[in-house]
Parts: sequence; structure tokens; C-alpha cells
Amino acid sequence: MNAISATYIATPADVGQKFERARSLVASDLLEVNRLILEHLQSQVPLIPELARHLIAAGGKRIRPILTLLAARLCGYRGSRHIGLATSVEFIHTATLLHDDVVDESGLRRGNPTANSVWGNKAPVLVGDFLFSRAFQLMVADGSLRVLEILSEASAVIAEGEVAQLITSNDTAIGEADYLRVIRAKTATLFKAACRIGAVVAERPEEEELALAEYGEALGIAFQLVDDALDYGAEQRVLGKDLGDDFREGKITLPVLIAFARGNAEERAFWRRTLEELDQGPGDLEHALELLRRRGALRETVERAARYGENARRRLEIFPASPAREALSELVDFCVARAF
Amino acid sequence: MNAISATYIATPADVGQKFERARSLVASDLLEVNRLILEHLQSQVPLIPELARHLIAAGGKRIRPILTLLAARLCGYRGSRHIGLATSVEFIHTATLLHDDVVDESGLRRGNPTANSVWGNKAPVLVGDFLFSRAFQLMVADGSLRVLEILSEASAVIAEGEVAQLITSNDTAIGEADYLRVIRAKTATLFKAACRIGAVVAERPEEEELALAEYGEALGIAFQLVDDALDYGAEQRVLGKDLGDDFREGKITLPVLIAFARGNAEERAFWRRTLEELDQGPGDLEHALELLRRRGALRETVERAARYGENARRRLEIFPASPAREALSELVDFCVARAF
Repeated sequence: MNAISATYIATPADVGQKFERARSLVASDLLEVNRLILEHLQSQVPLIPELARHLIAAGGKRIRPILTLLAARLCGYRGSRHIGLATSVEFIHTATLLHDDVVDESGLRRGNPTANSVWGNKAPVLVGDFLFSRAFQLMVADGSLRVLEILSEASAVIAEGEVAQLITSNDTAIGEADYLRVIRAKTATLFKAACRIGAVVAERPEEEELALAEYGEALGIAFQLVDDALDYGAEQRVLGKDLGDDFREGKITLPVLIAFARGNAEERAFWRRTLEELDQGPGDLEHALELLRRRGALRETVERAARYGENARRRLEIFPASPAREALSELVDFCVARAF
Repeated sequence: MNAISATYIATPADVGQKFERARSLVASDLLEVNRLILEHLQSQVPLIPELARHLIAAGGKRIRPILTLLAARLCGYRGSRHIGLATSVEFIHTATLLHDDVVDESGLRRGNPTANSVWGNKAPVLVGDFLFSRAFQLMVADGSLRVLEILSEASAVIAEGEVAQLITSNDTAIGEADYLRVIRAKTATLFKAACRIGAVVAERPEEEELALAEYGEALGIAFQLVDDALDYGAEQRVLGKDLGDDFREGKITLPVLIAFARGNAEERAFWRRTLEELDQGPGDLEHALELLRRRGALRETVERAARYGENARRRLEIFPASPAREALSELVDFCVARAF
């Protein structure tokens, strides 16, 4: 458990450095991916690149395309096909984000309609569809039916996971198994596919393809567990989203499930009122944070993430040591340790 | 112009018969398509088949998959691949419908939230994504990169058309060219692709593929023109949607553009108030219908549809006479004459 303990003393600067080291190994590939992204966002309808660019540029760390690039590198791939496929992965991810941001009627009832009331919900949905189509056009241009198979199946599983999440929302009675099933589908599936296609494009044996798929899946679960912990425990400035978003939406995540399971009757009543009935008032978020800390729920969530991280790292052992393997290992550290 | 006059005297029974005759030629294929639809709707998340079945079963006449089946038949295709591809086309269409039904914030402001307030907007979006992914899985299983290319490009163009329609909504200053560009993208593209892949699967020469593509595109434009006319001129019972839906949403369709162009200052002020400012009161829909009739806007719209229909029919001339060619020709009659 040394690796896990190590994550506890990592400073934010260490964590950022680990990510940067991993990223720098494929920095030139990533420039190509960024160029392809902009190129394929083009449309005769200017709102499409406007809206998508906003999200993709503002966007994240490109962790999913980086996984494809590093996996291909790990497998000794020397061509350029991984660029288009990594772009495809990022387009699928962005489409999912756009569709995930659709405001529900219930969301509207609680206020906070998006600023862009002119376009409302429809534009993000349609731009998401556009990106999704572009993702498939990129795969078709690549020409590998195997990659198309992996990513079209992944897309179906992601959608299933998102629907399953809708159903389990606001239900404190769901079990940890349900929760894990949801995050495996909605998050880990794309991490898994992103890694796997790196092996496919390099035409590596099934064993390596599976090892990378399992690495990606375990990493994705760790990533989502930490994300769910961060929602209750990180500075808004660092995370780029509001503290307590999940709480306000009544999303049932692992931290809540742990605190609920460990809580007394009064605490459970609190969780039911705030998350099932969405009856929330001033001080409730603070009280939720206090209960999560009291029950060790955030720490437990991150410890589980660290275990998934270790599982991911073990899957890399069949590959000989290389800068790419080291980078994929550092991504594990990053995904887990960014919680601290 | 005989063909056009002929449509004017067609009775609803004639029209229905034409469609039924065309459909009956591929009735057994269509049963297979329906079976595949149900099979591929299956998911471990029960809400998905529930929600999708509601739409697909309640659904329409399956005109798009019928086009694929008839096009393959016209090209002498004898295998069974057209079944999966026709299913794929219907899935793309249904996904588009689900996403088109997303309620905008502006839509909510005008009341009429959907009955299913538990699932809100998100479920239809995610189930649409699922169907879209399933469509690609079916194409991947088929294995034709050419078909994947045609349908992934079509999907991108459809999304672009839908976004373009959002932008031109509530703007009486758009021209007919803008309107035609939108319906060509959002409706005619899938008709075109549906027909084209029938030739692709039969491995017919480029000339036949293009003829079927052009047939489908012209038919799709005719279909949408008639749809837009029907929104102001059909019995609710027959059409299955409310009279004046487009009016209430402020959608600018060809009937309105014609009435606006031919109207006097007072009439234009009426259209601007009701469709741009969405300031609508009792009697406004009736007045709109009166203006459309006075300016001959519905008749003109349907006459243009008939001309597109004739263009579609001409594209069939390079094929020898056959029951399939006759059926595709009767579909033209159906698409145009259902306006009466």
C-alpha cells in the first residue's frame, strides 16, 4: 500500500508535474490533435464551431486523447493514424459533455437557467450530434472496422450508463454496485476504448489490447471516484465547477452512499430530505460536508480510487519499461492524487 | 403539368392506397426490419426500450427504411444486408426526432411542459444517443465503409441543418434560399442517403447510385414542403400533430415566407408580431390561416413540392420498368398528394 500512502503526501505541484510529464511525451502529437479538432469543427453554420470551440478550448486536459496517443506509443506504433482516432475520442467525449449539460425541467425549476437563453437546450444537443457524427467520419476516414466497432459500442454503453444514472438519481436506496455500474459505463468505457484503440492501431496481440483496455477501465473508475469526491472537497477555483453541484442536483455518488450507510437515523433523514426530496436550505451543503468528513466518506472514496489506480498500474506490467509506460503510470498518480 | 393537376384530384383513399402498394412490395423485408428494431432496442436499462419503443412503435410509416428496401430491390439486390441498413436509417431518424423534441427554455416559458416531468429533457437526449450508437453498430456489423461514410456524413449534415434552422427561427427576413438549404439538410439528406445505400449494397455503378441519391433528395424536399403546408392545413386527426405547431413555435416555413412576401404592410406586421416576437393571442392562428389562403401560400408550397416530386420521378427513368420502380414512383405521389 506504499503507492497509496504516497498519494496522500503528494502536493498539488507534484500532481500537476506528473500530468505535465505524461503529456509532454506526446506533446507534438497533441498539437496535431488540436489542429484536427479545429479543422473538423468547421461548418457552414458558424454557431457550431462557436459553441463547440467554447467547450473544447475551455476544456480540460485532453486526458482521453492523451491515453490513445500514449497507448499507441507504448505499443511501438510509428504511423499517424492515432492522431485522427484520438481526435475522434475527444469529439465523443465533448458530445457527451454537451448532452450532459442539457437542462432538465426540474433543473429549471430550481432556477439557474443558462445565460444563453436564446439557444436554450437545443443548440448544445444538436452541436453534440454534429460532433458525434464528426467522430464517426474521422473513424471512417481511418478505415478500421475494429476501431469503429469498439467506439460505436462504447458510445452505446455510455448512453446506457447516462440513462441508468438518471434513474438512480435522487435514490439513496441504490447500492454501491449500482453506482459502480453507472460510472463504469458512463466514464470508464471511454477511457477503456481510448486505450484499447491505441493497441488496435499498432496491431498488437489480443493480450496487449486487453491489458490496455483493463488499464483504461480501472483508471476511468478511479478518475470518476475522485471526481465525485472532489465535488464535495475541492476549491471551486481549482476544479472549475461549483462545490456541491452533485449535492444540489441530488446525485447519489459514492461519498454519499458511504456516509448514508455509516450514518445514524437522523443523518439518513437529512440525506433523504436533501437528495431525494431535493428540499435544501441554507446551511445544508455545509452540513453535508460535515457529515461526509465525520463518516470518513471522502477519504474512503479516494482510497478506493487509489486501489483502482493500483489495478490499472498492474495492467501495464506486461509491457517492457519505456517512457510511455512511465507516463501511463504517472497518469494513474495524477488521476488519484488530484484529490489532495 | 399533368402530373401536378392529377394530384389535386387525388382523394385521401387513393393516396393511402399508393403508399400501401409501395409498402406491400417490401412487406416481408419490413417485418424483418421491425424485428431488428425491437432486437436492437434491447438494453440492460429498461427505460431505453420503453422510451424508444413508444416513439418507434407509435411512429410513422417507416418511409425512410422503405426507401432503402425499395432502392435495393430496384437495383436487383438479392441478399439480406439491406435489412440491417434500413434499420440503421430508421434509428438515425428516430434519434433525430428524439433530439428535435427537446424542450427549449423558451418553449417552457410558453407553457406545455411534457407530461413526463420525471425524466425531463435528458432521457430523450440520451436515448437518442443510444439509438444513434446502435445505428453505427448495425453499420459496422454490415462492414461497408462506403455505407458508413454516407451515413456518418449525412448525420453531420442533418445536425448542421437543425442548427441552421434554430438560427433562422423567428426571423421573417430569411429568404427562400435559406429555408430550402435548411430542409435540404435536415430532411432531404436522410432520404437521399437512405436511397443511395440501396444502390451501394447492390454494388451498382456510380450512375445508378447518383440517380437514386438525387431521387431521394428531391423526394425529401417535396416531403418536407408538404409537411410544412400540412402544419397549416390538415386535420389534426389525420396528421397526428396539432394544427399550427410551427406557428406557435415561430418557425419560418415556406408558406409563411410566401405569404409574407406577397402581403401588405399590415400583414407583414402581423407575421412579425406573431412569429418574430411570439406575441400571439386568441384568433391569431385563424388569422394566419386566412392570410395563407388569401395569398395562395399553401397552394404555391404544394405546387413546388409537386415540381420536386416530378424531378424525383425523372431520376428513376434510367432504371428499367419494374415493380420497384413503380413503387418508388407511387411514393412520390404519396408524398405530394397527402397534402390534399
